Formats: sequence, structure tokens, C-alpha cells
Amino acid sequence: MKKAFYHCDIFTLDHEKIIKDGMIITEDEKIAYIGKMEEERLQDCEETYNWSGKWVMPGLVNSHVHIVMNILRGVGDDMLLHPWLTEKIWPLEAKFTTDLAITSSKAAIVEMIKSGTTLFNDMFNPIGLDVFKLYEAVKDTGMKGNLAYTLFSNDKGDEAIAKEAYDMAQYIKKDRSLIRTTVAPHSPYSCSEELLRSSVSIAKDLDLPLHIHVSETEKEMNDCLSEHKATPVQYLADLGFYEQPTIFAHGVVLTDEDVALLNEKGTSIAHNPISNLKLGSGVADISSLNRAGVNVAIATDSVASNNNLDMFEEMRTAALLQKGTHKTPEAMPAYSMLKMATLNGSKALGYEDTGVLKEGYKADFISIDPRDKVHLQPLENASSHLLYAASGKDVSDSVINGNVVMENRVLLTLDEERIIYDLNYYYKTL
Amino acid sequence: MKKAFYHCDIFTLDHEKIIKDGMIITEDEKIAYIGKMEEERLQDCEETYNWSGKWVMPGLVNSHVHIVMNILRGVGDDMLLHPWLTEKIWPLEAKFTTDLAITSSKAAIVEMIKSGTTLFNDMFNPIGLDVFKLYEAVKDTGMKGNLAYTLFSNDKGDEAIAKEAYDMAQYIKKDRSLIRTTVAPHSPYSCSEELLRSSVSIAKDLDLPLHIHVSETEKEMNDCLSEHKATPVQYLADLGFYEQPTIFAHGVVLTDEDVALLNEKGTSIAHNPISNLKLGSGVADISSLNRAGVNVAIATDSVASNNNLDMFEEMRTAALLQKGTHKTPEAMPAYSMLKMATLNGSKALGYEDTGVLKEGYKADFISIDPRDKVHLQPLENASSHLLYAASGKDVSDSVINGNVVMENRVLLTLDEERIIYDLNYYYKTL
Repeated sequence: MKKAFYHCDIFTLDHEKIIKDGMIITEDEKIAYIGKMEEERLQDCEETYNWSGKWVMPGLVNSHVHIVMNILRGVGDDMLLHPWLTEKIWPLEAKFTTDLAITSSKAAIVEMIKSGTTLFNDMFNPIGLDVFKLYEAVKDTGMKGNLAYTLFSNDKGDEAIAKEAYDMAQYIKKDRSLIRTTVAPHSPYSCSEELLRSSVSIAKDLDLPLHIHVSETEKEMNDCLSEHKATPVQYLADLGFYEQPTIFAHGVVLTDEDVALLNEKGTSIAHNPISNLKLGSGVADISSLNRAGVNVAIATDSVASNNNLDMFEEMRTAALLQKGTHKTPEAMPAYSMLKMATLNGSKALGYEDTGVLKEGYKADFISIDPRDKVHLQPLENASSHLLYAASGKDVSDSVINGNVVMENRVLLTLDEERIIYDLNYYYKTL
Repeated sequence: MKKAFYHCDIFTLDHEKIIKDGMIITEDEKIAYIGKMEEERLQDCEETYNWSGKWVMPGLVNSHVHIVMNILRGVGDDMLLHPWLTEKIWPLEAKFTTDLAITSSKAAIVEMIKSGTTLFNDMFNPIGLDVFKLYEAVKDTGMKGNLAYTLFSNDKGDEAIAKEAYDMAQYIKKDRSLIRTTVAPHSPYSCSEELLRSSVSIAKDLDLPLHIHVSETEKEMNDCLSEHKATPVQYLADLGFYEQPTIFAHGVVLTDEDVALLNEKGTSIAHNPISNLKLGSGVADISSLNRAGVNVAIATDSVASNNNLDMFEEMRTAALLQKGTHKTPEAMPAYSMLKMATLNGSKALGYEDTGVLKEGYKADFISIDPRDKVHLQPLENASSHLLYAASGKDVSDSVINGNVVMENRVLLTLDEERIIYDLNYYYKTL
């Protein structure tokens, strides 16, 4: 089926130029035409959307998130990591039911779509949950991304955990929906060496990317050096990581050798600037990573350490932090940051056909209507406003794989009101 | 006249507790009652507002802004300070007309009200403008704050500049409207010693606060040390600052002696975290300033270096930066930051009767309706969401000095659509 989105200004992010009064024609999942407005192209489109005055850009990619935790927003702010985990997060997660987890995940997806994300990369704690039922519920939302069973060593035993993770990954992989998966051991410090090796085996066996928290804090770096005589990045290399595409969440504390290794192996960093600040981890030096050639993507982490999933806020914070810490406004120009939050994210997640708007690529894009928004004036400086002034709340429409999932801020695939009601209901059970 | 705002949850910020199902009764400009809902109190109110389900908090105080510059949003991002000023900002400001400046200022006021600010502290470049006409236009907006003629040494001569600034300050001071003024020499480096001394004299003569940019960058600190053998903070002390209440914008680069002096003199710091990051100035250590007893307020600076006037975003960034740079989540807890953006701002600007909600204080408050906002769930954790998840775009209503200036996001004292139209028209003349 062909659809037309027309009379809009398009930031393709394939180049720095803006297509003024442009149009996008989609055919099924893909972009069939993108360019100047040509009235006659509307004729053979079955659905037409007059997006006059709107700005259009690729959907944002949230490269590291924990959607099941969305019910834990605002639990335990301003706390040190250890009491936060042991007194707040873990006791609450132990009470999660599958139905609660489904509602929490749907709330996260509502929030992501409403703030301009069209592709996400998740990691969730599977304890006590029917992971297949959770997957089936997420699959029906119209959202695109990776849902992953988090592996970490616990009472269950590494072998049982690896088996469960394998089964779920295989189940998702066989399906051909919008939701894919990764193999996601939690971190070098919470998985045994055996479990980390098993993760690599599963990833190779099913040809899936690996996704893991790495080098988040100085403590992690120091502990790893004393226990394994290697940095977390080197330690994982020794265990066979990087033979499959790998996404490292965080990467706040890295040595020069780590950076060289990441670049050599083509490993991506999912940078979570707000979570890293909020938990006191520090600021990842993504300017240097970027200069070294490492693929850096942007992410929100969970709402327990952020506390929202607004990728506009995240990419603005990421750009500002580089300018502030490197003490120059020339660090991380706007266009580089917009690419990190779109194309680099798609690359990190292994989606070769999203992240820029061009013919043959997947139809994943969002719109903003700036005309009634005083903070997006003057209209002429639109390219600046997208990074420096806009918010997720400015997003008007969202198209994922050619499907319109939000139109003028109304969600078409999810019952937002019901999900909010249920989320508050389940919160009271915790 | 008495008005009632009722059935809402109130964050007075006078204490950490929330008044659930509370009400505020205003009488003219002031709060006459605040507390639990009492149905019978509605009877003698002439206007009643059922704010069921809404959260209410004191209006935010933007303690350093340049409203006339609102038309320059997105001009010259990612540029070094010198070319930014000489190639972009100054040549454009030279073309400003009074009508353009009025529209630009009104756009800033629209943006401030729509994002929850109820009190602001401005500094504007008066060159080529009819400052009295500008004041008259700002006075009619229903907004509350300080508008100030910026003094800086130029071709006009210090004496003429001081005279103009004096005349404007006297004119505003005589009036008894919501708009007051300060004496605002631009900075230690852009004003001659004579002009700085004149500023102090004017402030003393008219009993007004002083407002000045101080210690924004390492360069400023080093230049001042080599030229005056004193830090900017010490240099201004020698010239007689602090004898009137003084607001220092920025304060990024301070010595321990500077901090001790600021505390001793009761000088306030207007902290601009986003501008300081964006221009590469660095991060002000407001945790230490706060611990030392200095009154720290929060500010956005202008949209040319921010690029929006959203105080929710500003206070969140301020809190996160302290956690990230001090490497502990315990730095700057949520409640301290909410106080900085409300009570501390009011104190800095010399408003003794705003910044918390209590009887006898001015009726300056805002509401948020969280019920249809997925990013403000679960509702139970409201105190956290106000700092860590909310945005200026979530603000629903605004009351300033007892007047409802925004109701369900509709402005009642300004023609937003017309202002946006005019702003784009004037931008094309630059």
C-alpha cells in the first residue's frame, strides 16, 4: 500500500540540507520516494497526510532501556547505588507479576512513541515472569526494537539461566515481527565467567548481537582490574565478545587501550548521559570515542535512573555535556548529535535500513508541528531547534515501518488511558 | 476579590509534605488560605477553579535572562564565544528596532509563562531602543519581574550611559506595577571602573539591587587577575558592590576566598547550567556554594545560549550536573533543587513574599495535570516527577499575583498566535 506525507520540511539526515516543501511516499514498509513536493505523485497513494508546516526527521533510536521497569519511576532518587538496589529496586522487582510487567512495558512504549522514539534496545529482568507472554504483548504494540532476557548469575544456576535465555532468543528470532532480540548478559561483575562464555555461544549460535552493561563506574573498573587483571572491555574480549556485533551500555570509564579495542572490533557504545549523571557515575567522553571512530549511540536507560524516556532531552544533554566538559562550544555540533541518536543507534542495533530518510530505507520517521510552539521560533532556525530547543512533547506524528502509530499525538495502536490506569493499579500492589 | 483553587495536591515548598486534596484561597494579590479542602470556604469566593487531580507548586523564578534576545534563538550554535558575538549576536542586535524588541520580549514572556515561570530577572541591551516604550509594553503582560537596562562602556561615554540607566531605573521604580528593575552593569570586563562605580551609586541612590555577569569563564578570571590583581568577585567588592543586594550571574570560576566573600556579603548566584555547558564555560560548583551558605538561584540565560526558557529542564540539569561532577547521587537532592528554583530565586531578586505557598504570601503558583501524561506515572511519586520527569510543557495553569494568566495552557493576557507571527516577520528584517 502506498501512503503520502506531504508539504512538509524534511531533515533526511542523509545530508545537512533540508528539503523544503517536500514529500515522502511510502510503499508498505519502505520509503519509495523522498524529495520535493510533486502533486501528481499523490494520485496513486491510498492514504494521504497533509503535513503542511511540519518538520519531519528520522525516528529516534533509544539504544539502551529497561521497559519493564517503567512502573518504578521516581523510586529511590538521590540514593547511593547499593541501598538503591537492595532497599528499593530489587525488593520491588521481586514482586513483579507478568501482567504488571506487560503494563509497565506498554507504558514505556507509549512514552517512547509519544516522545519520538521509533526503535529501542531493551534488557529486562526475567525473574518470575512468563517471558513468552511478555514478548507476545510487546509484539502487538506496533513498536520496533529488541527485547532481551537479561542473564545474571543467581540461585537458579548458570546452566538453567543460559537455557532459558536461549529458548526465549530462539522463540523471538523465529518470529518475523517488528520485535527482535539480543543476547544480554547483565554485566561483567554480575555474571560468572561461564555465563559470559555461554552468552557468547548463544549469540554465535543464533547469530544475534550481544548487549551488556560495561565500564559504568570507577568502582567497576577498579574491581575488574583487581579481580581479572584486565579492564572490563579487555576482560570481555578475552571471553570471546566482539565476534558477534556487540553493544556496550555506558562506557563511562575507559582506558585508551579500551577505546582502541572498541574501534578495532566495531563495538558500539550506548551512551546514557542522564543516568550516568544521576547515579553519580560521571560523564562518558563520547567526543573522544567519536573522534577515535567508535560508533556512539544515545540512550535513556530506565526511568528509575533518568526519569523519563525523552530522547530529545537525552541528545541535548549529551551534546551540552561534551561542550561543558571539553570547555568548547565546538565539541559535538548539532548535526553529529542528531546522527548519533538516529543512524548510529540503528547501526548499533544491527538495523542497516533505518536511521536516515532515503529511498529503499524503512519508513521510520516522526513529525513536529512548530507553528503554535513559541519555543520553536523563529521557524527559520529549525535545524538548531531540533537539537537545542525541542522536547519529546513536541512530537506530533510517528510512522514505524510505514505504519502511522501516532497522529497528532493520538496513539493508534495502544490504549494510553487504559495503560495509565492499569499502571497506577499495579503500583499499589507493590 | 477572592478566588478558590481546589481539590488539588499542593507542594507548598514551605515543608516537604504534600497537602492532598487541598485548596488555595486568594484574596487580591495574596494567599488568604492554604490547606485541606473545606467545601464551605468556596461560598464567599467570586471565582472558583476545580483543579481536581492537578499538582500545584510555587511558580518558578528565572533569575537571569535576556528577554529581548528571544528572536535570536538558534543563531550561531556550536561557535566559539568571540566569533559568536562579533559575527552573529552583535551585528544582529545592531539592527533591532523597538518594535522588534517588544515582540521578542513578549515571545519570551509567553514562553516563560507557558513553562511555569512566574518571576524573572532580565538584563537587556538598550542600544537603539526606546527603553521606556519597551517597559510599557512589558508592564502590560501580567508577568512579574525585573527589566533592566544593561550598562557597558562604549562610544556613547560612561556618563551618558549612566544617565540613561538612571533615568530608566527611576522611571520604573516610580511605577507600582508588577515590573521592577535592577541596576545592571554588564560585567567587570565590559564596563570601565568608573561605570561600575556609577552603577553602585545609582543602586544606592534608588535603593535597587545590582545584577551583573561575574566569573563566567576561566579567561575572565585570568584576565581580571592580571589586570586588577584581584578576582572578579574581589574586584567588585573593592568598587563598592555588595552594599546593595547583589545578584551575580554565572559564578562558574570562583576561588575559596570568593565563596567566603559571597557568603559574608549575602550575594546571590544566578546559576545557568545549560548556558555554561553550551558556551563551554564549565560547571559551577553550586553544591559547595550551597554548603557554604551562599544563596544559589537557577536561571536559563538567553535562548541564544540555551536554547529555551524551560526552568524545569534547567533545574533538572542543575541537579544532575552536581551528582555527575561530585560523583554521588546524594549531591543536590530533589527538594533542595526545587527550593533553589523558587524560594532562593525570590530571595535573590529581593521578593520577600514569594517562592513558597503560605498564607500572607503572594499568590504566585502553577499547576500540572498529570493524569493524561504517561511520563508522570505512577502518580504516587509526584514529588520526584516534579524535578526529574516533568517539563515546562506539562504546566497547565499559572497564577501571578492572584491573576490567572494561563488556564489549561491558554494564555489570558497575551495574544500568543500574533506574537509568533510577528516574531517571524521581524526575524526576516534582520
